[in-house]
Amino acid sequence: MLENMFKAAREASYELMNINSSVKDKALAKIAELLDKNRQLIKTENAKDVAYARERGISQGIIDRIMLDDKRIDGMITAVHEIIAQTDPVGKIVDGYKRPNGLYITKVKVPLGVVGIIFEARPNVTIDAAALCLKSGNVSILKGGKEAIHSNICLGRVIKEALKGSGLPEAFVNIIEDTDRALVMEMLKAKEYIDIMIPRGGDSLIKFCTEHSLIPLVKHDAGVCHVYIDEFADMDMAVAIAVNAKCQRVGVCNAMETLLVNEKIAGTVLKKLETAYAEYNVEIRGCEKTQKIIKCVPATDEDWATEYLDYILSVKIVKDVDEAVAHINRYGSQHSESIVTESYTNSERFLDRVDAAAVYVNASTRWTDGGEFGLGAEIGISTQKLHCRGPMGADDLTTTKYRIYGHGQIK
Amino acid sequence: MLENMFKAAREASYELMNINSSVKDKALAKIAELLDKNRQLIKTENAKDVAYARERGISQGIIDRIMLDDKRIDGMITAVHEIIAQTDPVGKIVDGYKRPNGLYITKVKVPLGVVGIIFEARPNVTIDAAALCLKSGNVSILKGGKEAIHSNICLGRVIKEALKGSGLPEAFVNIIEDTDRALVMEMLKAKEYIDIMIPRGGDSLIKFCTEHSLIPLVKHDAGVCHVYIDEFADMDMAVAIAVNAKCQRVGVCNAMETLLVNEKIAGTVLKKLETAYAEYNVEIRGCEKTQKIIKCVPATDEDWATEYLDYILSVKIVKDVDEAVAHINRYGSQHSESIVTESYTNSERFLDRVDAAAVYVNASTRWTDGGEFGLGAEIGISTQKLHCRGPMGADDLTTTKYRIYGHGQIK
Repeated sequence: MLENMFKAAREASYELMNINSSVKDKALAKIAELLDKNRQLIKTENAKDVAYARERGISQGIIDRIMLDDKRIDGMITAVHEIIAQTDPVGKIVDGYKRPNGLYITKVKVPLGVVGIIFEARPNVTIDAAALCLKSGNVSILKGGKEAIHSNICLGRVIKEALKGSGLPEAFVNIIEDTDRALVMEMLKAKEYIDIMIPRGGDSLIKFCTEHSLIPLVKHDAGVCHVYIDEFADMDMAVAIAVNAKCQRVGVCNAMETLLVNEKIAGTVLKKLETAYAEYNVEIRGCEKTQKIIKCVPATDEDWATEYLDYILSVKIVKDVDEAVAHINRYGSQHSESIVTESYTNSERFLDRVDAAAVYVNASTRWTDGGEFGLGAEIGISTQKLHCRGPMGADDLTTTKYRIYGHGQIK
Repeated sequence: MLENMFKAAREASYELMNINSSVKDKALAKIAELLDKNRQLIKTENAKDVAYARERGISQGIIDRIMLDDKRIDGMITAVHEIIAQTDPVGKIVDGYKRPNGLYITKVKVPLGVVGIIFEARPNVTIDAAALCLKSGNVSILKGGKEAIHSNICLGRVIKEALKGSGLPEAFVNIIEDTDRALVMEMLKAKEYIDIMIPRGGDSLIKFCTEHSLIPLVKHDAGVCHVYIDEFADMDMAVAIAVNAKCQRVGVCNAMETLLVNEKIAGTVLKKLETAYAEYNVEIRGCEKTQKIIKCVPATDEDWATEYLDYILSVKIVKDVDEAVAHINRYGSQHSESIVTESYTNSERFLDRVDAAAVYVNASTRWTDGGEFGLGAEIGISTQKLHCRGPMGADDLTTTKYRIYGHGQIK
């Protein structure tokens, strides 16, 4: 059903690969301009999604993620301008040398080609993903969820108008205007036409893509993040970080889900945290030792592997930094992990031994973010080791090509 | 069945990740030493594989790939010494900065963890793959084909002895000593324990892995490579390159399978090539226009997508560089592609527009190789865009980790 769109995308990718940065940036500026001009239309279409969500009794949290108001439209416009301001990764020579046989070899960043993105809820992803792909010379094929279908179609048309207004083919950005789940399967099998697939969403989406995709994936999966309070921690700092990592925003992947506390200081610090968390109505699920110190629900083995995305926290008391590391490597999702300590040795041991995208000493896990890392807008946070790990920006939407200059060399 | 091996591999990976280069290099030197000491044993075990292959009437080409003699054992020893001489990629700080909030962020290369490799025929892959993984701090799990099972088991035991002799856990390198195909499936599903899978082999192996793997793959697939002789080519150079790319070694992925010739010079150059190829008994399968110039078999549409790995060549006459590029992007396997031309404009157009791992001007496609590119030993040549493209060395057996130093930063 989508094959014609896929074929056109592949054809267009050969053109987009070779377009100069200035042309791409002009088209991005046009997108920003038309987002501003079409505010009323965007809000009207978005209201349909919100109304439909209310009808279906969708939770307020998700309705909040769907909703677009002027402030959020401003946010999308700002994001596009930030992407314009970034350096185009395409054409960067990352390596190069003259070989003994006289061949000049250069290794150059080039676009991936065609990027498929499957996402849920937030309609602003349509703009972020299309803009990042355009910046990095990739044709995008976007499939949003049914919760925001009116908004996504409307934003897609704004982008198409901007491309047309910039004299570029509309096939550079493709929005699947149909919410049929079968189309996800069709994307995952289209390995002739799509170079990578980026699924952004809940567990079931990621699992489905992993099981069925014939196309390489970059997954943006769950975040089961930990803070470990070491015996040598500064107690005030530990409390501040543990509260921030859990409570500053609970519905995000870099929020803490499990707190690990060294047994030597567990009594003091857990008492302080009990009071602090009470202010946010955090439900604490503790290990046996924790249950003896503060009032809490008993934690099950399942709790250690759960991403609550809510005001719930599991707490485990551990013997030392090694037990903390082992727990994190066993139950964590390799996203963001932090130790609070004044011990130099323990901090280095934690940084060395925890296997995750981002490991922190004395800072909140909440910092893991493309913007906060200075990478500009991100298309998500990769929780896999292949291709890119952590915040994924325009730079990670490229591959490389060896360009080799000879003068008749044969082997 | 293999779960205990996988679990032990995962556990061992946390240890291997943090071992210094000097320790790893000492273990590699021990492998080289024991390969030399165990020559007789290796040849005896290998003879069983060769005898069994003869019994089963396996082709001489494959028997040649299985066979280990002193020269080949020397080759394996040399490869290990070359890997020792390479720089350890682990620990390289690839990026770093202090953020406005005072966080010091460093992005560091770290091992992938556990690498699964499935390969066919050549037993030397056991040594190359194990050595490259060890160098880059990865635990390896190797599954060779049944054609070389005695050799692989023997080489595996040599490696284990070397690890033991160096005081390192044997679980750093794991050889699956069973040829049951079901075990491939078991590897592909073990996503809790294996971080990446590298299949090296024929079409059916790659297809099987793509369809069933729950683990990210780096594929080492077919090479349908082209040489395009432009109207502005130096004719002597064009003939030399076209002969070298096809005939110097036919059974390798970077050999040319299809020759594209500009219509303006097709008459001259094809006549010369007809004579040159006759010396190697190359069977030519030509397009309609080619059939009018030289004696050849008619090429079918299937020919354009076929990796012959043999003294067979398909030939197509094209109008210009753009038609050549379009043909390559449609039928090629994104491996190695070359243009022969003296036209600057056409050379740049070809380099820009052909979508492949390596694109050449005035050189044979046969150069695509980790050693020839100065990358050291390679674990294969990646034909995908994700993670790494082209020759895959120790450097590509890493991922990254952000190590972040704070002093209480909360969001």
